Amino acid sequence: MDVPSEMKALMLVGDGYSRTPSGSALEAMGPYVQLGVITVPAPGQSQALIKVDLASINPSDVAFIRGQYGQPRVKGQPAGFEGVGIVVASGEEPYPKSLVGKRVAFATGVSNWGSWAEYAVAEAVACIPLLDTVRDEDGAAMIVNPLTALAMFDIVKQEGEKAFIMTAGASQLCKLISGLAREEGFRPIVTVRRDEQIALLKEIGAAHVLNEKAPDFKATLREVIKAEQPRIFLDAVTGPLASAIFDAMPKRSRWIVYGRLDPDTTVIREPGQLIFQHKRIEGFWLSEWMRQFRDRRGPAIMEAQKRFSDGRWSTDVTAIVPLAEAIGRVPAELTKPNGKVFIRP
Amino acid sequence: MDVPSEMKALMLVGDGYSRTPSGSALEAMGPYVQLGVITVPAPGQSQALIKVDLASINPSDVAFIRGQYGQPRVKGQPAGFEGVGIVVASGEEPYPKSLVGKRVAFATGVSNWGSWAEYAVAEAVACIPLLDTVRDEDGAAMIVNPLTALAMFDIVKQEGEKAFIMTAGASQLCKLISGLAREEGFRPIVTVRRDEQIALLKEIGAAHVLNEKAPDFKATLREVIKAEQPRIFLDAVTGPLASAIFDAMPKRSRWIVYGRLDPDTTVIREPGQLIFQHKRIEGFWLSEWMRQFRDRRGPAIMEAQKRFSDGRWSTDVTAIVPLAEAIGRVPAELTKPNGKVFIRP
Repeated sequence: MDVPSEMKALMLVGDGYSRTPSGSALEAMGPYVQLGVITVPAPGQSQALIKVDLASINPSDVAFIRGQYGQPRVKGQPAGFEGVGIVVASGEEPYPKSLVGKRVAFATGVSNWGSWAEYAVAEAVACIPLLDTVRDEDGAAMIVNPLTALAMFDIVKQEGEKAFIMTAGASQLCKLISGLAREEGFRPIVTVRRDEQIALLKEIGAAHVLNEKAPDFKATLREVIKAEQPRIFLDAVTGPLASAIFDAMPKRSRWIVYGRLDPDTTVIREPGQLIFQHKRIEGFWLSEWMRQFRDRRGPAIMEAQKRFSDGRWSTDVTAIVPLAEAIGRVPAELTKPNGKVFIRP
Repeated sequence: MDVPSEMKALMLVGDGYSRTPSGSALEAMGPYVQLGVITVPAPGQSQALIKVDLASINPSDVAFIRGQYGQPRVKGQPAGFEGVGIVVASGEEPYPKSLVGKRVAFATGVSNWGSWAEYAVAEAVACIPLLDTVRDEDGAAMIVNPLTALAMFDIVKQEGEKAFIMTAGASQLCKLISGLAREEGFRPIVTVRRDEQIALLKEIGAAHVLNEKAPDFKATLREVIKAEQPRIFLDAVTGPLASAIFDAMPKRSRWIVYGRLDPDTTVIREPGQLIFQHKRIEGFWLSEWMRQFRDRRGPAIMEAQKRFSDGRWSTDVTAIVPLAEAIGRVPAELTKPNGKVFIRP
């Protein structure tokens, strides 16, 4: 296929990590990425070059461009962890070669050639050939959220208790998990920051939706925890909210951190609970899960595609912003609740 | 055997838990226990009544009498979690009956009849018939420290890394673990609060002894961790010291809390480490370990007795204080380093 020598991309302004903690809201794109023209990369032996049709913006992208994600930035390289597109070139290995011409969902991982660009590079094993029945919007957001949802709900199911807790309940990820939970008779307890999110989340599958800003939040939280006895806490927030939730949870509870939306200090309120109540605190990262549980990756991928194909899952779209308009428009689009913002190169 | 109807005991002043956090030093006994006379209890079906020869004072006893341990106090009942003595009466079950007349190490657990008294009640399964070759001082301090040492060192061995970290390095427990570690070629990194503890701990088996009060402590800590790559952190302290140590530890490290000597706030400095470095935070409690690993309890008990019999282990004795003098003398004796304080009823 014809591949040009240069491409437009949103390139990282900063290098490495930032020492300044900040909140989850992206006040502006300009300090972190700039639109420019860069040479189209050549894929390595095990990699694929993808012509990007649609790239997603996840909370992890926002943290990453600000230098607050678990991977260092490389200045001048395109940002963007996932997207959908057509494989137009590949390395010499058989599997990457077999992908050429196919539409794939992809995660750029540590390739340093992100999806917020006309072309992106991903490891072939991080490319998922898509069924025709999967929409671009769903393919572009298939890896970071849906696979994480399936993996984290698997943890809930293994624990066995029907009730579990999630912060950032209105996120796309938590909505996916709530839906899975409802299907199998589990009871998600989720926190949100706006009353208008409550009805929708209950409809999707949340058993309880608690507004963390409500004056009676802590009392309600304790009541709900007492009644439901949740043991798994899937936490995207950390900080004082998460500390309070973990403190109120019963014996043998597990606080599983997968995000850090609140830059505030995270306190273990009662370390004695770790000793005498056998509670523990750990993390979740999709890459680690895929490394540790290779046999579950394939079935999870197929499950995600089936769900998007038959309409059980559908990604809510807030906006699809052209690459050239991203810097100006994305921050405002991200403030809108209940949906995902995409970039179209 | 002749058992009187009444006995002297150090009885709890407070009830339940205390909400006031405090440090590890015991400024006085009077606010927490009072000497008095109480009816000698009758053992239940599965229990043994022990004429106490010697009772130990552990950090957990100090925390308990102040209402800051993981079990609620019952006002008016005798304190004291462990001791040594002769079984003088028992419940009707065969195993308790078989113990009558025997010298045992015992842990009072949740019997509410502690060892700081002329007679104590323990579950028969928490009574260990002693070899004649085990001294009373070693028997009186056999369960809380030696069994914990064997259990926690087992966790270190399972992890596989030769180096590991312990706070409160000068405690009897850490000394026992350091000795076990040296025998098997492991490298304990321990923290202390006094320079004069350093030489002794190195002699016992610590590979590195760091004074947490030293001005270059944090720099030294990072250097040692970088060189040794410890993955297990056995922590009796929590608070800022423990937070700093865990923060500096490498990928896949486990912070295992078993004590709470510092009442200061315990912070997870970088929750992102839980996600991207797969670190985790958990607790250790001997009762839970014995519950989860029943098959390891017997061999650990035999190992402890052998070590005390052949002199590989020996409990350092700071003082043996008569019951009647305990309230006046114990606080001062507890401030002396490097040994254990006992109460003789």
